[in-house]
Amino acid sequence: MAWSKGILPVRLFSLSKVGRSIVSGKWCNELGSTMDLKEDENGQISGTYITNAEFFKSNSPKEGAKLVGYTNTHKKNGTTTMTTTITFCMAWKEEGSCSGFTGQIFKDDKNLDVMKTTWLLHSPVDCLKKNWKTTCVGENTFRKNQ
Amino acid sequence: MAWSKGILPVRLFSLSKVGRSIVSGKWCNELGSTMDLKEDENGQISGTYITNAEFFKSNSPKEGAKLVGYTNTHKKNGTTTMTTTITFCMAWKEEGSCSGFTGQIFKDDKNLDVMKTTWLLHSPVDCLKKNWKTTCVGENTFRKNQ
Amino acid sequence: MAWSKGILPVRLFSLSKVGRSIVSGKWCNELGSTMDLKEDENGQISGTYITNAEFFKSNSPKEGAKLVGYTNTHKKNGTTTMTTTITFCMAWKEEGSCSGFTGQIFKDDKNLDVMKTTWLLHSPVDCLKKNWKTTCVGENTFRKNQ
Amino acid sequence: MAWSKGILPVRLFSLSKVGRSIVSGKWCNELGSTMDLKEDENGQISGTYITNAEFFKSNSPKEGAKLVGYTNTHKKNGTTTMTTTITFCMAWKEEGSCSGFTGQIFKDDKNLDVMKTTWLLHSPVDCLKKNWKTTCVGENTFRKNQ
Repeated sequence: MAWSKGILPVRLFSLSKVGRSIVSGKWCNELGSTMDLKEDENGQISGTYITNAEFFKSNSPKEGAKLVGYTNTHKKNGTTTMTTTITFCMAWKEEGSCSGFTGQIFKDDKNLDVMKTTWLLHSPVDCLKKNWKTTCVGENTFRKNQ
Repeated sequence: MAWSKGILPVRLFSLSKVGRSIVSGKWCNELGSTMDLKEDENGQISGTYITNAEFFKSNSPKEGAKLVGYTNTHKKNGTTTMTTTITFCMAWKEEGSCSGFTGQIFKDDKNLDVMKTTWLLHSPVDCLKKNWKTTCVGENTFRKNQ
Repeated sequence: MAWSKGILPVRLFSLSKVGRSIVSGKWCNELGSTMDLKEDENGQISGTYITNAEFFKSNSPKEGAKLVGYTNTHKKNGTTTMTTTITFCMAWKEEGSCSGFTGQIFKDDKNLDVMKTTWLLHSPVDCLKKNWKTTCVGENTFRKNQ
Repeated sequence: MAWSKGILPVRLFSLSKVGRSIVSGKWCNELGSTMDLKEDENGQISGTYITNAEFFKSNSPKEGAKLVGYTNTHKKNGTTTMTTTITFCMAWKEEGSCSGFTGQIFKDDKNLDVMKTTWLLHSPVDCLKKNWKTTCVGENTFRKNQ
């Protein structure tokens, strides 16, 4: 195998990710929210998220937030399929809330990248007894802007 | 009010957070998982998470992961209560999975800090059709190590 | 208004639900799973669910289950909009697992009924310590069969 | 084995469940909410749930609701451990909302029954565009009243 010539697979793989990261770029979901992601050579991501979800401060301009997270590219032992999971999170300053996303990037039947995510949104309450009602859950599907 | 002397509240507040961040430090949850968090002056957090959850590669040493995230300290208009929500996320290299947490830090009835979190764990699947079964949800309660 | 003739609106409404329940009938989701719902005059529902989700006993015929639940038709004080939320649940005998759904029925932009649901699936584990990994979450959108 | 004498295991098992259902009875969770469950010989459950969760119509008496659901007692092929998962759901008339629970009954380290559950709560919104923010998620631990 080529690896035997002293080139570590992890390095080749890493370069390959830098060269054509499927994560970096602009993504848009079914609610019209957009995000701009940048993946570094270690799989850490940073970017911005602009929500279009109705009611986030209705009448105000769309709220934006910085995000941080990771991608995780993986090949299960004994298989040939490479999988890319992703997680990122952000704070919503105006609401005092925070969101965390997890998901995976797939190829759809047109060979386009589609990112399926599930998120949690924690809205603040003023005491521990009310914590039970803080956390919403939902799904979003993101696609690369063409 | 003191603010009228030209000292921006946001700055005072920010310094105060640096001086005695309630987020920074070691936290432990009810499963014995631990994390070491560091909050910078902008509310961004970084750290490490060591899981004790049974079955994460049974027989192997506890798996650790780097984490990134944010805190969000907030005072609702017309109220005096300051709330601190939090979000952080990490990639589990051995499993190819990713976790995202959201939560809030409260004082319990002994005036100790308690962090109530909800998390998502996305485990990779090899195609879009199987995405429906990828995402687990759960709660964890963290306390500061004494 | 007709109500003035001594016929209680709540009764008319109840009759109307029996006459043209939007819940009763066959529904199909984006994974090809189908369910047949019947709503009684008290808002209780019963029916059957046939899953098409890949991997539920691959190679076996689609697994079916009986379901029970409720609808909740509601008008918020001071508003005119009637909302219909729904919940139902079932046991998957072959897997030893259980699912619970909650959701709401809306009109889409073509005035067709669409049921947006979120579900939990609890798969059994053999001891309390493993409970953290039992619960998957997801969304499904159902439409009436034409 | 005794089964060979023409007595169907499923019947013996069913009788055993009727005789000493671990599900039937009064349960109480960490928020002080209580439920009274009755399991029939087919594993279907019915009962009532009285919530103590703060804010459900503050100042009003605790809200109660009827519930329906199933238990699922199961033995995985090749194992000897019997597992009991559970699901139930209810409508909250005053709020127009619905809840669905899934979970499992375990023995704790004192050999007492403990029911670990995860729930979804769907609160109504007036149009499809707002559906993203309808669904809260949480956990509750129930114990049998002594």
